[in-house]
Amino acid sequence: MDSLLLSRRDLDFLLHDWLDVTALTARGRYAEHDRDTVDAVLDLSAEIATRHFAPHNKKNDAQEPTFDGERVHLIPEVGQALRVFADSGLAGAAMDHAVGGQQLPQVVANACMAWFQAANVGTAAYPFLTVANANLLLAHGSTEQVDTYVRPMVEGRFFGTMCLSEPQAGSSLADVTTRAVPQPDGTHRITGTKMWISGGDHELSENIVHLVLARIPGGPAGVKGLSLFVVPKYLVAPDGSLGERNDVVLAGLNHKMGYRGTTNTMLNFGEGRHTPGGAPGAVGFLVGEAHHGLAYMFHMMNEARIGVGLGAAALGYTGYLHALDYARTRTQGRPPTGKDAAAPQVPIIEHADVKRMLLAQKSYVEGGLALSLYCSRLLDEERTAEGEAERARARLLLDVLTPIAKSWPSQWCLAANDLAIQVHGGYGYTREYDVEQFYRDNRLNPIHEGTHGVQGLDLLGRKVVMGGGAGLRLLLETIGATVRRATIAGGEAGTLAAALAAAATRVGDTTAALWAGGDPDTALANASVYLEAVGHVVLAWIWLEQFLALPEAGDGFHEGKRQAARYFFRVELPRTGPQFDLLDALDRTAADTRPDWF
Amino acid sequence: MDSLLLSRRDLDFLLHDWLDVTALTARGRYAEHDRDTVDAVLDLSAEIATRHFAPHNKKNDAQEPTFDGERVHLIPEVGQALRVFADSGLAGAAMDHAVGGQQLPQVVANACMAWFQAANVGTAAYPFLTVANANLLLAHGSTEQVDTYVRPMVEGRFFGTMCLSEPQAGSSLADVTTRAVPQPDGTHRITGTKMWISGGDHELSENIVHLVLARIPGGPAGVKGLSLFVVPKYLVAPDGSLGERNDVVLAGLNHKMGYRGTTNTMLNFGEGRHTPGGAPGAVGFLVGEAHHGLAYMFHMMNEARIGVGLGAAALGYTGYLHALDYARTRTQGRPPTGKDAAAPQVPIIEHADVKRMLLAQKSYVEGGLALSLYCSRLLDEERTAEGEAERARARLLLDVLTPIAKSWPSQWCLAANDLAIQVHGGYGYTREYDVEQFYRDNRLNPIHEGTHGVQGLDLLGRKVVMGGGAGLRLLLETIGATVRRATIAGGEAGTLAAALAAAATRVGDTTAALWAGGDPDTALANASVYLEAVGHVVLAWIWLEQFLALPEAGDGFHEGKRQAARYFFRVELPRTGPQFDLLDALDRTAADTRPDWF
Repeated sequence: MDSLLLSRRDLDFLLHDWLDVTALTARGRYAEHDRDTVDAVLDLSAEIATRHFAPHNKKNDAQEPTFDGERVHLIPEVGQALRVFADSGLAGAAMDHAVGGQQLPQVVANACMAWFQAANVGTAAYPFLTVANANLLLAHGSTEQVDTYVRPMVEGRFFGTMCLSEPQAGSSLADVTTRAVPQPDGTHRITGTKMWISGGDHELSENIVHLVLARIPGGPAGVKGLSLFVVPKYLVAPDGSLGERNDVVLAGLNHKMGYRGTTNTMLNFGEGRHTPGGAPGAVGFLVGEAHHGLAYMFHMMNEARIGVGLGAAALGYTGYLHALDYARTRTQGRPPTGKDAAAPQVPIIEHADVKRMLLAQKSYVEGGLALSLYCSRLLDEERTAEGEAERARARLLLDVLTPIAKSWPSQWCLAANDLAIQVHGGYGYTREYDVEQFYRDNRLNPIHEGTHGVQGLDLLGRKVVMGGGAGLRLLLETIGATVRRATIAGGEAGTLAAALAAAATRVGDTTAALWAGGDPDTALANASVYLEAVGHVVLAWIWLEQFLALPEAGDGFHEGKRQAARYFFRVELPRTGPQFDLLDALDRTAADTRPDWF
Repeated sequence: MDSLLLSRRDLDFLLHDWLDVTALTARGRYAEHDRDTVDAVLDLSAEIATRHFAPHNKKNDAQEPTFDGERVHLIPEVGQALRVFADSGLAGAAMDHAVGGQQLPQVVANACMAWFQAANVGTAAYPFLTVANANLLLAHGSTEQVDTYVRPMVEGRFFGTMCLSEPQAGSSLADVTTRAVPQPDGTHRITGTKMWISGGDHELSENIVHLVLARIPGGPAGVKGLSLFVVPKYLVAPDGSLGERNDVVLAGLNHKMGYRGTTNTMLNFGEGRHTPGGAPGAVGFLVGEAHHGLAYMFHMMNEARIGVGLGAAALGYTGYLHALDYARTRTQGRPPTGKDAAAPQVPIIEHADVKRMLLAQKSYVEGGLALSLYCSRLLDEERTAEGEAERARARLLLDVLTPIAKSWPSQWCLAANDLAIQVHGGYGYTREYDVEQFYRDNRLNPIHEGTHGVQGLDLLGRKVVMGGGAGLRLLLETIGATVRRATIAGGEAGTLAAALAAAATRVGDTTAALWAGGDPDTALANASVYLEAVGHVVLAWIWLEQFLALPEAGDGFHEGKRQAARYFFRVELPRTGPQFDLLDALDRTAADTRPDWF
């Protein structure tokens, strides 16, 4: 049976036929890899995801973690799956050999991660966060911090978290109030409350490595006064053995609509229950320099945003495959022009409206996965660039694409999950089937790691204006290069190219129009609409890219790709017209609405 | 505190300022009512909904019905609330005095029902179904059936269900196989399995009155061979006392994503467990004539479709009010041009993007409620029309609007619930808050009582072509009359009128274009897109109608209505442009996709 998690055929197409990842192995960093090692690690991921993650996905949802006031209880399958994962070495898939990693291209490591997110996003969140945490410390931590925390994370003995939000400060990190008081021994004592901390407490690992944003008293107000600290659940002795319990206390679990397998917590730092000797507060170790915490955290956050988009695509993808499987086997009704009630019912995939819903899903989830992998490959470009200009170029393009890579799959692969339910009819609304869980799980993605609104402000307020608009120019040049290739290819590719070129022109014109007035309030009032419109243009580009990678004479798989590209250009891209019109009009309907009018 | 269920101010505006329901009381049927009795029954509904339905809404969700193999167990609050409801006489609000009803206008009775759907859709489903069942029997049952079943339903002693679907026949009623074998005494014996039966078993009422579609052997194939039967859980003696248990057996409960407070069941008829004396099968009583069952059932179904739309609007409405309440009280961040971190955080309703999400919700939920009430009032027009032409006109317009009244709120008020979660941020994703439940509850509405796809086929394949296109002409004339009034009013109303007129022209042109080719497969392949496009045009009309009912000099409430109308015209109506373009192109992208391309 074909997998209901992801399509390996599609992954091979994206990684090899389109993104040519084996070309990366010509570069020093990845020189010991080749197509065989790439295929092997994908096989391994698919197998572990299928055998150890997918089987407890529903149970993880139905029997969510509980807290008895002392300890968190999870179903045992979570720990069992994570031990298999740790033993596989996949946690360090993209990390340096020096820290025990496999030094695979990031794009391959992310393709591996997608299998786990599709299989069981609740369980997959633990290594997802741990890897992001470790990468931050690799980039900004001291050698000692790397040795103390990163190596055990790669080995799967320690897990990691990111602690940004507080109950009064979700999107507004300027209002973080957690305090970090310097101590004579160079450590800090941390006091405060952090909210929405995924993986914040559990007994799955020997230790939990919290990365905590906090303020050193006397520093600047706002985000410029945030510093970053490692705060381990258990202090670690120089020989690596675990010492005293640190003063990090679970205040409670959040009970969510979905994503239930992942503990999500409120944590008190410095509550006094476990204070190690010395001043009150949890013991924290400064990462890098004081007051640079937000920049470091954004290293992790940007990576996490790509990963959130990838996870959203993976959830959309598995929902699509479930809907497809159902549509092929469920019989119901007859075609409009074959109403003979004596004829047998047909598989519902024969109905045009079901095909429409499947094709829409296909265009969203394959498009979302492709965008995620494209962005992942930019990370590899950045890491292995020959010169600084090339490196900066990859970083700049990734910076512009990140808010879209986070938000677009979160919106549209959730829409895919909605359609997957609809294809199932009443059965899809029941918990006997799988798709309603995907829909509930995926609904988190437009919220965490920066809401949809925050991504819009990031794109329109920062990314397209930074460097005098260099990021936007680079994006449009990159799209333009695809347009040129497609125009030269001619035929249907040329037709799609013309539509994409027109849409890309609107992106440029509308961005200029929004900022021409010098009125950020008006420009940013429609940042979410801008995000959605530009996102759809970017996805049209991603679909044209895939279209160009198809062979002239292909099989059903290739025809399906072509058809999904056509669908995206005919049905989806035109949605942006009214959005650009609204933006060009500098619409203030929402902005001008007074709170007392509601 | 203002209600978080519905806005009474808005209901008063819709019922009195716009729909002028007291004008109905000039007509004989409603002559004993006036503004005071209308207001009193709305007050009563709001109070019972608030005091007896809303408090157990979350508990109803968390502790869903269970089945121990013999009996169904519900939390006791459900039965308590339904007894208060029964005692209030609201079940018979719109029914004739002759059967114990209050003979209120249907539009008022539906406005009352909306309070219960907003408060607790799981509990409200029982009277909702019971009333629809009773109305069917009032229209098509015998005097004896009315006396035996309807009166106890009005009194709240019996509850009702509708039994159409079977495990192998959901949307495809032509494939219903349940058999009804005539008996010498004039009854029938029913054998078969029915699926998705809400309220199918419980101990909330003395008896359950099932209305069952079944086939009398020897009848025509397909839908033309369906007959309708009353199948009570307990047989009823001529004196009204309950007799033997009938052979209707609960096979199991369906466990749903939302709407959990309502038992949803698979029922076996004629399983043999409780067979009364005589032939095997459950005892059923034919309603009306044999082989006319589907037409009778559609009497109930059409009413239920208006009610589903109303319920979707009510769920969207309460979600909006919850989001509004949260946005007024939750502080977070600062305006884009006021980034001084030392300034206090502002209520999030100050942020343009939050206002955008609130305004979108407002336009969806107030629009959806207005459409539902408009359609309800058409029922009153039909019932109290002076002549046959007027009656037929009201029926025709209602027929055309029904698929939209069912589907539009189901789609867009679910979208409102999605936005309500987003306004709440992470909190909205937790079960500590209410909005995630509304989102899960509302997701049923695009599925039951005819899926979105079925509504599209109904609108494009039947409603706009029936009578040589008379229904569509009437709809467009009705919209045209509003356009003329708005054009005469001039100013902003005139501007909106011009946009609506252009959109209405596209409805007519596109419908003609779709059918011009004489190719139903192609026309119907995009029926769902057609449904959505026409739905948005209808809602623009509903918003212009409301706009015209506003006073020149009003208060914040009136300004808010005006702003929501502007939002709908500026942001929502333009979405239809690319949809009409796609339809005009007779797009076959989905239709031409071969199943093996997925």
